[in-house]
Amino acid sequence: MEQISQHACHGGTLTYCRHVSETLGCDMRFTVYVPPHPEGEILPAVTYLAGLTCTEDNFTTKAGAYRLAAELGLMLIAPDTSPRGDDVPDDEAWDFGKGAGFYLDATESPWDRNFRMESYITGELNDLITAHFPVDRARQGIFGHSMGGHGALTLYLRHPDLYKSVSAFAPIVAPTECPWGHKAFAGYLGENRDAWAEHDACILMRRSSRAAARPTILIDQGLDDPFLEAQLKPDLFGEACFAVGQKLNMRRHKAYDHGYFFIQSFMEDHLRHHKAILRDD
Amino acid sequence: MEQISQHACHGGTLTYCRHVSETLGCDMRFTVYVPPHPEGEILPAVTYLAGLTCTEDNFTTKAGAYRLAAELGLMLIAPDTSPRGDDVPDDEAWDFGKGAGFYLDATESPWDRNFRMESYITGELNDLITAHFPVDRARQGIFGHSMGGHGALTLYLRHPDLYKSVSAFAPIVAPTECPWGHKAFAGYLGENRDAWAEHDACILMRRSSRAAARPTILIDQGLDDPFLEAQLKPDLFGEACFAVGQKLNMRRHKAYDHGYFFIQSFMEDHLRHHKAILRDD
Repeated sequence: MEQISQHACHGGTLTYCRHVSETLGCDMRFTVYVPPHPEGEILPAVTYLAGLTCTEDNFTTKAGAYRLAAELGLMLIAPDTSPRGDDVPDDEAWDFGKGAGFYLDATESPWDRNFRMESYITGELNDLITAHFPVDRARQGIFGHSMGGHGALTLYLRHPDLYKSVSAFAPIVAPTECPWGHKAFAGYLGENRDAWAEHDACILMRRSSRAAARPTILIDQGLDDPFLEAQLKPDLFGEACFAVGQKLNMRRHKAYDHGYFFIQSFMEDHLRHHKAILRDD
Repeated sequence: MEQISQHACHGGTLTYCRHVSETLGCDMRFTVYVPPHPEGEILPAVTYLAGLTCTEDNFTTKAGAYRLAAELGLMLIAPDTSPRGDDVPDDEAWDFGKGAGFYLDATESPWDRNFRMESYITGELNDLITAHFPVDRARQGIFGHSMGGHGALTLYLRHPDLYKSVSAFAPIVAPTECPWGHKAFAGYLGENRDAWAEHDACILMRRSSRAAARPTILIDQGLDDPFLEAQLKPDLFGEACFAVGQKLNMRRHKAYDHGYFFIQSFMEDHLRHHKAILRDD
């Protein structure tokens, strides 16, 4: 792992990192914010998954998260949204291929060689960060935006031993029932709908047996979000949570849109949500 | 004036604007953040001047200012750093021409046609914002970063009836004594050193007669800033303020560099500084 740059920020340190990913077969970048903390202490960490077209830099520069992360003592990890580089297959669309990895392991050629973001985030990247930063592996959460909200919800539900808390901004909650999801899942997973179901937060929630024991899930959604009705459909997730007794704090906000001015407006509540669940008992 | 886009943000509204500037002879963009406020109320406003290579968007997306601006009830205005467009002369250097207007009115050809940022910021833009946004013209402050810190200090000293408060992040305080300033002033103002002196914050401070009556000036400077010794030289401003009895709160911060992770770390203190001076007596 190579440190591209380091920046003092709110009393802690933000590091831009680069490494060769074996899982993805390409160079990858990510950022880690380490808040001020006593020497030798290990810290709770929250991973943020970004949306379509984004890189590790969108959250890092635009989300306004580090002030409160410093206050709460939270590490924040921001990966990229897909494999990168000239050797990685791509699609000319902005919502498929590079910048649109959908946080799953592709099974269809040519995508299956590189597009393995689920294994990367939950495996290789997690191990790399544990090796280089003072993270408490037992106290990790995950959150994200739009496609990254889909990623956060599905990785949380699929990896309960890894992630103890989850939240999302304007997530895609039902990729099997929206155009972005149809396109991505057909491309990465083929036409086997059973495989699709394994990466749909609503279906995973309805199938889950231990929902009542889980902490509350926090979701914020802007009501002026242009993708609300056709792509995001938060009500479907509300119904799925209700059906299995999952506690859900779904907040709808008049006038807010889909961008980082929306995200930064509610960032504080998300970080406090994670910190409360990841507290050191 | 045309609204390019509007975004709800921390309970207020951020607007990206475009207009044809008569002063600059080109299309210009800027952003205005209006915090939540009672209907009909006019608000104190602070203008942020950005540094070399920046546009109106750097502060807008990276400075993390709107959360506290919402809490304090401050309007925040972010102009571009130079005239723009294919008809505007440019230089191939990154520190002269477009993106490097230095907040003065050029007198040398071909720059004098368009590079009139002082008249633009203090005149046309101020009038435009007063016409379209609920600003209290009597309660305005100015701040900025690097070249924009130079702009903030010099426009504050040259327009005391307009700006009642000032602060800066890593400002160029003595452009007549650093390479960036030499290059810009020689290009925009020619070789007349008397003209240069009119835009040097240290010289303006030493010449000012009412320094003791002014409120404190706040400056933050990172000690890992690569431009500190050759370009910024904050001690020169400290000496100039001391010489005339100007109250100055100059803070030096270990480990911080020249970028927006530094700026966002101390943004709260700057907004509180302006709000305290611009309070409604």
